[in-house]
Amino acid sequence: MSEAVETLDGWYAFHDFRVIDWSLWKSADKAIREQALAELAAFAEECTRDMKNRKGSFGQYAITGTKADFLWVHMRPTVDELTELKMRFQKTKFADFTRPVYSYTSCVELSSYLAKPGVDVDTDPYLQGRLKPVLPDTRYVCFYPMNKRREGNDNWYMLSRQERGEMMKNHGLIGRKYAGQVTQIITGSQGLDDWEWGVTLYSNDVLQFKKLVYEMRFDETSARFADFGPFYIGSNASNAQMQRLLSV
Amino acid sequence: MSEAVETLDGWYAFHDFRVIDWSLWKSADKAIREQALAELAAFAEECTRDMKNRKGSFGQYAITGTKADFLWVHMRPTVDELTELKMRFQKTKFADFTRPVYSYTSCVELSSYLAKPGVDVDTDPYLQGRLKPVLPDTRYVCFYPMNKRREGNDNWYMLSRQERGEMMKNHGLIGRKYAGQVTQIITGSQGLDDWEWGVTLYSNDVLQFKKLVYEMRFDETSARFADFGPFYIGSNASNAQMQRLLSV
Amino acid sequence: MSEAVETLDGWYAFHDFRVIDWSLWKSADKAIREQALAELAAFAEECTRDMKNRKGSFGQYAITGTKADFLWVHMRPTVDELTELKMRFQKTKFADFTRPVYSYTSCVELSSYLAKPGVDVDTDPYLQGRLKPVLPDTRYVCFYPMNKRREGNDNWYMLSRQERGEMMKNHGLIGRKYAGQVTQIITGSQGLDDWEWGVTLYSNDVLQFKKLVYEMRFDETSARFADFGPFYIGSNASNAQMQRLLSV
Amino acid sequence: MSEAVETLDGWYAFHDFRVIDWSLWKSADKAIREQALAELAAFAEECTRDMKNRKGSFGQYAITGTKADFLWVHMRPTVDELTELKMRFQKTKFADFTRPVYSYTSCVELSSYLAKPGVDVDTDPYLQGRLKPVLPDTRYVCFYPMNKRREGNDNWYMLSRQERGEMMKNHGLIGRKYAGQVTQIITGSQGLDDWEWGVTLYSNDVLQFKKLVYEMRFDETSARFADFGPFYIGSNASNAQMQRLLSV
Amino acid sequence: MSEAVETLDGWYAFHDFRVIDWSLWKSADKAIREQALAELAAFAEECTRDMKNRKGSFGQYAITGTKADFLWVHMRPTVDELTELKMRFQKTKFADFTRPVYSYTSCVELSSYLAKPGVDVDTDPYLQGRLKPVLPDTRYVCFYPMNKRREGNDNWYMLSRQERGEMMKNHGLIGRKYAGQVTQIITGSQGLDDWEWGVTLYSNDVLQFKKLVYEMRFDETSARFADFGPFYIGSNASNAQMQRLLSV
Repeated sequence: MSEAVETLDGWYAFHDFRVIDWSLWKSADKAIREQALAELAAFAEECTRDMKNRKGSFGQYAITGTKADFLWVHMRPTVDELTELKMRFQKTKFADFTRPVYSYTSCVELSSYLAKPGVDVDTDPYLQGRLKPVLPDTRYVCFYPMNKRREGNDNWYMLSRQERGEMMKNHGLIGRKYAGQVTQIITGSQGLDDWEWGVTLYSNDVLQFKKLVYEMRFDETSARFADFGPFYIGSNASNAQMQRLLSV
Repeated sequence: MSEAVETLDGWYAFHDFRVIDWSLWKSADKAIREQALAELAAFAEECTRDMKNRKGSFGQYAITGTKADFLWVHMRPTVDELTELKMRFQKTKFADFTRPVYSYTSCVELSSYLAKPGVDVDTDPYLQGRLKPVLPDTRYVCFYPMNKRREGNDNWYMLSRQERGEMMKNHGLIGRKYAGQVTQIITGSQGLDDWEWGVTLYSNDVLQFKKLVYEMRFDETSARFADFGPFYIGSNASNAQMQRLLSV
Repeated sequence: MSEAVETLDGWYAFHDFRVIDWSLWKSADKAIREQALAELAAFAEECTRDMKNRKGSFGQYAITGTKADFLWVHMRPTVDELTELKMRFQKTKFADFTRPVYSYTSCVELSSYLAKPGVDVDTDPYLQGRLKPVLPDTRYVCFYPMNKRREGNDNWYMLSRQERGEMMKNHGLIGRKYAGQVTQIITGSQGLDDWEWGVTLYSNDVLQFKKLVYEMRFDETSARFADFGPFYIGSNASNAQMQRLLSV
Repeated sequence: MSEAVETLDGWYAFHDFRVIDWSLWKSADKAIREQALAELAAFAEECTRDMKNRKGSFGQYAITGTKADFLWVHMRPTVDELTELKMRFQKTKFADFTRPVYSYTSCVELSSYLAKPGVDVDTDPYLQGRLKPVLPDTRYVCFYPMNKRREGNDNWYMLSRQERGEMMKNHGLIGRKYAGQVTQIITGSQGLDDWEWGVTLYSNDVLQFKKLVYEMRFDETSARFADFGPFYIGSNASNAQMQRLLSV
Repeated sequence: MSEAVETLDGWYAFHDFRVIDWSLWKSADKAIREQALAELAAFAEECTRDMKNRKGSFGQYAITGTKADFLWVHMRPTVDELTELKMRFQKTKFADFTRPVYSYTSCVELSSYLAKPGVDVDTDPYLQGRLKPVLPDTRYVCFYPMNKRREGNDNWYMLSRQERGEMMKNHGLIGRKYAGQVTQIITGSQGLDDWEWGVTLYSNDVLQFKKLVYEMRFDETSARFADFGPFYIGSNASNAQMQRLLSV
């Protein structure tokens, strides 16, 4: 039997991908659209305020392609708060013009290697900052879920702890090359959603997402042991930008 | 030919996942919404009363993410009762505001190892309590269906009874570490629904679902022999909480 | 090259799974609902009369879970009649309240081993009874489609005729243990629909479906060589029961 | 590197599978339905006239099961004509009562083995007749798409040209047993649609589709190297039959 | 660890596949349809003007089959512009009659082998022309996404750089045979969308798409190492052709 490496777990995350029903939006009265945008802005402002007050995290993004139009990312100490936020969003006028197309529930996760002896995870500022992250204010975001593969000879969970450790170390070295260019937040979702992990990347240069994912694919950890779900990219969208994008 | 281990079978289970049509809900008259909530509450109360009278089991949960908004779990002595309950729910005013998105039909199942010699399964209080369970009143629920894999060298059903027994024993030891933290109800669904088993977990700490599923994945039983379906998590929702979540 | 065993082929079968649009049904005038149910009853009575007159087979079932609400099974000498029956159903008022969710087209099939030397398949009463079956009037039904696997070393169609024969014999022995408890109708669908076979099981005890499918899965024929599609279970529904289930 | 065998390519094919919106159809005014059927008949007559004038091919079929209600097959010298035909059909009143559920774009294909030395493909009457086929006027049709498999040791495209040739020869011998009973039109779709080939079979006995596909599955070409998509069967439908099937 | 070959990256690409809601289109007032077509034409003209001014690329195509009716291809220096273009299209009257069915986000990509020593990628006219392409004005287009396979012994990313280089060289030789007949634009989408690459082919003879894809499939690079997504083909559609195709 292989041995699991304990994880450090932080806030729960809810990635909420939605499309706009443009026909409905365009045919609505101007006053209704303004009310809808005002309620959306109020919702986003409150979530942003909560992030400033360290009660949670929040990001709002315009997604490229037609798989989704917008993504809202929420992180909170409990899943109940995430369920409440889903329903509070639904109750805004704006939500009536949207349709959910994908969502992901997970939990911020760090390798326990990061917890050095003598460090109290619950009070260490560095670890707390990563477990309860303020979302980077970069221009672009990328999200994808993934599994570690369990197929024939390519079975991650049948490797020894040492083998996994060495591979993850090499894998991490690639990630480190992109330090300063790409910030990544890993969220674990075993038992919580359909894939094992969610990866949320932040950068001011969308090309770095492509370069990072491409380079890592040649690493044995990805080449032999990773299965990937759908990929989404988008741009940070302030309330003012939302107003502009949705003006008709 | 490998030899099947007989199972002990209890009540049939129906997991009913639904989303709310929020636009419809919000545009309905207040009186209609109140009637809908009253009919839902009456339905839930009757099912709860049946659980107290040992006629069946019932749970009501608010689900995180947009894959589903609510889950209702029913267990009954016959599948006819489950079909009737589905239709009785459909006849409530509340159901008009919902759309079914996933369901699972299965049957509470215990390993026959649990039936010690001389024990009458049909009257033994412990076994009867597990085969016809009162659903735990914990804060959180988790549900996922799964198969035992039959692929190349990773074919569970081609293992000898002894090999399977040893693996399941190790697997059970992990589960036992979570005793007191996580309660699990295994339901078998071979011949009844698309996966071979359903797993319903109960805990007051949603993180324990993640830890349990993660740790088990390194166990050979899961690593080599388990395929998993969709995962859902949610919170126990009383009628009062339903009222609050759905108030607009 | 492996050698195919000839099959005996009987009536064509059409399994028609549908859900009810409950909102539409409940909002319809009482008179419309009564007319719809009357037309459904007339349709079912005519099909039942045809079964008595040996012109075809017919069964009506309420399905458990939300994958489907009802199943209608038709068997006829030609596929044209099945197409006509689909359209005749569509023309009933009742059909306006339904939406098809799954269907299966196949042909009753027996192994030619059953045709002993000197037996005229076209007149032998036993074979004719099985090739043009009167559907059992049991309380429960189960349906699932399946393939014989063709993957790497687990390729059914690359086995010799003898190997297949021996495996099927063992497989049949398990089935025989359930004789009297479970009646099965095998329909072949190579060239007719997406899977290779359909299996329709009948029993007065739904647990026997689970036990039979579970026990067979340990048999090499299933363990190494079977891929399964969706499983549906339901209860026989007379017209009177349909009236009751659909009364609002 | 394996060597491709050149193909002879004829007309492009468009298989257009659709369902009827029966509620809409039945609720339409009689005059509208009559107009719709008249426009459909005119469309079919024109396409049939084009087939007689060797400008293209056309077939109209009622499909069994609820995956589709009708299939229209068009073949033309260019894909532009197929796109135009799709849109011309959409512009008929009848099309308003249909919803496309599946389509397939491909190109009639013959093995270049058929082009004997000295034969001019562009003028040879036999080859021209097969590359620009008049669709057989049989009672039944069957359609399915397929791939040659590329998995581990079962990789068709890694076989030598000789190995492929021998297998295809055996495969063809089975097909030849059904000569006179089943006519097949092979259309290639590499680069054109999601599968590599489409197979359209014609027969006056639907059972021959089942027997042919079943027998071929034991042939190594199919057993090890074929992956199959959805299967559809149906009956040839004249305009008079369409009128009858759609009368309400 | 295998070594990644750096890529040269150009404009971002957005392939936008949509179907027409024909019932809605046909039931709209003539004036509305004219306005819709005028807004579409204005949108297309502006995008074409931007292509002439080297601000981006644009193509408009009528798709064969019912998977999609039209495809609009946009390429731009940033993904923000692609998101804006999606929304600007949505704001046209024409968009109200369409429904997005598939989209693809990627980035024009060239092998870094093309950048010879001493060449400045950012100013070299040849490379700049390929990285920021004017879309060929051929009669036909073909699009499909693809992955390099990572399965058992067929794992592209576990090959050495040399092995990959040799295979790609052979692969390229086939492509070169079609030079003058088929122009291809490769776009990378690792980290950007669900497949690893998008392939957009241009030709005046649609048969060349079929021949090219077919011949390449026998090449080891495709035979063992390529997985393909959906294939779409269509015809270049000027605004005048759009008017004609959509006239009712």
